[in-house]
Amino acid sequence: MAGRMQGDERFGLDRKIRLLGPVKLDSGAEFAPIDFAYETYGMLNAEKSNAILICHALTGDQYVASTHPVTGKNGWWTRMVGPDKPIDPARYCIISINVMGSCMGSSGPASIDPSTGGAYGMAFPVITIPDMVRAQAILLDHLGIETLAAVVGGSMGGMQALSWAALYPDRVRSAVVIASTARHSAQNIAFHEVGRQAIMADPRWNNGAYYGREAPASGLAVARMAAHITYLSEAGLTEKFGRRLQNRDAKSFGFDADFQVESYLRYQGLSFVDRFDANSYLYITRAMDYFDLADMHEGVLAKAFAATKSRFCLISFDSDWLYPTAESRRIVHALNAAGAAASFIELSSPFGHDSFLLDAPEMNRIVDGFLRAGEGQ
Amino acid sequence: MAGRMQGDERFGLDRKIRLLGPVKLDSGAEFAPIDFAYETYGMLNAEKSNAILICHALTGDQYVASTHPVTGKNGWWTRMVGPDKPIDPARYCIISINVMGSCMGSSGPASIDPSTGGAYGMAFPVITIPDMVRAQAILLDHLGIETLAAVVGGSMGGMQALSWAALYPDRVRSAVVIASTARHSAQNIAFHEVGRQAIMADPRWNNGAYYGREAPASGLAVARMAAHITYLSEAGLTEKFGRRLQNRDAKSFGFDADFQVESYLRYQGLSFVDRFDANSYLYITRAMDYFDLADMHEGVLAKAFAATKSRFCLISFDSDWLYPTAESRRIVHALNAAGAAASFIELSSPFGHDSFLLDAPEMNRIVDGFLRAGEGQ
Repeated sequence: MAGRMQGDERFGLDRKIRLLGPVKLDSGAEFAPIDFAYETYGMLNAEKSNAILICHALTGDQYVASTHPVTGKNGWWTRMVGPDKPIDPARYCIISINVMGSCMGSSGPASIDPSTGGAYGMAFPVITIPDMVRAQAILLDHLGIETLAAVVGGSMGGMQALSWAALYPDRVRSAVVIASTARHSAQNIAFHEVGRQAIMADPRWNNGAYYGREAPASGLAVARMAAHITYLSEAGLTEKFGRRLQNRDAKSFGFDADFQVESYLRYQGLSFVDRFDANSYLYITRAMDYFDLADMHEGVLAKAFAATKSRFCLISFDSDWLYPTAESRRIVHALNAAGAAASFIELSSPFGHDSFLLDAPEMNRIVDGFLRAGEGQ
Repeated sequence: MAGRMQGDERFGLDRKIRLLGPVKLDSGAEFAPIDFAYETYGMLNAEKSNAILICHALTGDQYVASTHPVTGKNGWWTRMVGPDKPIDPARYCIISINVMGSCMGSSGPASIDPSTGGAYGMAFPVITIPDMVRAQAILLDHLGIETLAAVVGGSMGGMQALSWAALYPDRVRSAVVIASTARHSAQNIAFHEVGRQAIMADPRWNNGAYYGREAPASGLAVARMAAHITYLSEAGLTEKFGRRLQNRDAKSFGFDADFQVESYLRYQGLSFVDRFDANSYLYITRAMDYFDLADMHEGVLAKAFAATKSRFCLISFDSDWLYPTAESRRIVHALNAAGAAASFIELSSPFGHDSFLLDAPEMNRIVDGFLRAGEGQ
């Protein structure tokens, strides 16, 4: 899987680099220097025409197809990326970058502020999805990659893919946008706000200055639990757990996790805090809530794609109530209005928003076909 | 509105009574004595045939149609209950009782345990929806009311109405069940579990022993925020708030409540903690999660209604994703199988689960017609 390019330390697994930048932020501020943690799989060809950027979701990271250093688990998208998968390192130079604001090695609130020697905490600038993309472009410049064969992402990764096409119309030949949206709805914002308030309500949060001390794990766990429900469908939860009890024959008439679904949610919350930083959760959810690609283009989504030369592939899932099919359809309408080549399909799955991370042979066939169709260009 | 029966202190506004009980609980325990806080509107007729019991929802109370003593707001169902409303004190003796486990005067975790002289806290027994109903029956005995012309409730109030018909088939002539369910789904349980974990994560919760000190207000506010989202529809939130900013022209690039929906949710959380007890929230959500009327009858919902003589009126709302129409339909199928008289309608409203508390002329017409049709019996 490794495939480091001989003698070129810029490529390979578990790469880290500090670049001068600066990255110009939507807030008007500039941020520098920028740390990047990223991985590449496969070899860049001589024409540098086979690079694919994989963008991760809110709590994802650069470990797309290699073992996560904290959890020891497989990469989060080995179903899509790997030998004989649609995004195959034998054919592509695959790049995945921990987004700015996150906590797996790229610059984020837990990073050391060179000007103080301490962690940024809440002094880290509030960023947007386009800011994340601008930072990624700086790393791609460093890698010598001018044009991406494709930028691919699900959920927040899809927001980045859309932003890539909008910000850098000449650098993106195709974009794959899965289970995503061009804007956060009131309900999306509301769920994120619950999570942020849960974190901020934890006294250990301490206005974000908890590094080196106990982290606000309880608040972050509650935030994760609330969000996790939105990743699954009602039908999926019923199929998976129903009202089944957890390791007991009868109700306890107490406040233990009597039901399997309670036990599952508690586990999701508790295991999450071992691998994620609470402040990063605040910053990234904020970036997602701020995301409205039309708003950046006089309220007309089609204008975001006016200059694009990309082909687009959109995929939604019928049971995804976080970013429902209607949001993908809205993007497709805008792409059509902008004269961009767009294919769109809604897939059927009982598993809600999380479907894109699960076994979905149809999704794989579609992505494979879409990428192959672009190779001749 | 008052209508106290002359010389009978048992009837009127803001009544309180301690009864010996005991109430036999589903857990096997017994609870005694039992405090009841309740209100009655209108006069009981000579035949004692015109009593209607209104059952309230999770965070509701006995102040159905009179001013709430803490908030100073109008009663929560003045659209349904009052002069010239479907449930009119000129025609009915209307009774509303704060449910056992709540915090507006009936026995709950904040009540004083006579055996210790301190608040029960988590020593209060875990109760169920049928337990709440058994307690209500004890109060109705005290009021000399053997038979109810109707038991009416929305949401958790509907669960009580169903339980009344199942537990006391001879005491209920009709039941009105609005925006409700005969069981809590995995998703329902999951959202409640998030709320409970938010409360328990607040260090001020202190295993429920916070009376006389600071209450776990932060945790309770987060619980309320999460729950509140489930009371509204995605479309309703978009219509009401969309992505509009709150008192500002541009994003703050900070963590203030930039969006109206954030500000609204924060307000919902903060105002709730002034009127509700965190432990009551734990106990009542637990009772709702335990609710599965079929489970109490060998897994066959129709058996719950085998002995009923009630007529039933069920109403659901098409945008209610907390207790969707399918749940009402499931109840109607069971009633049909049991040979019970049941009418059912799904109403259209953009406002989600909360629709039953809002202006809904069709709902009022249906309840009015249903109750009048029963008066001749």
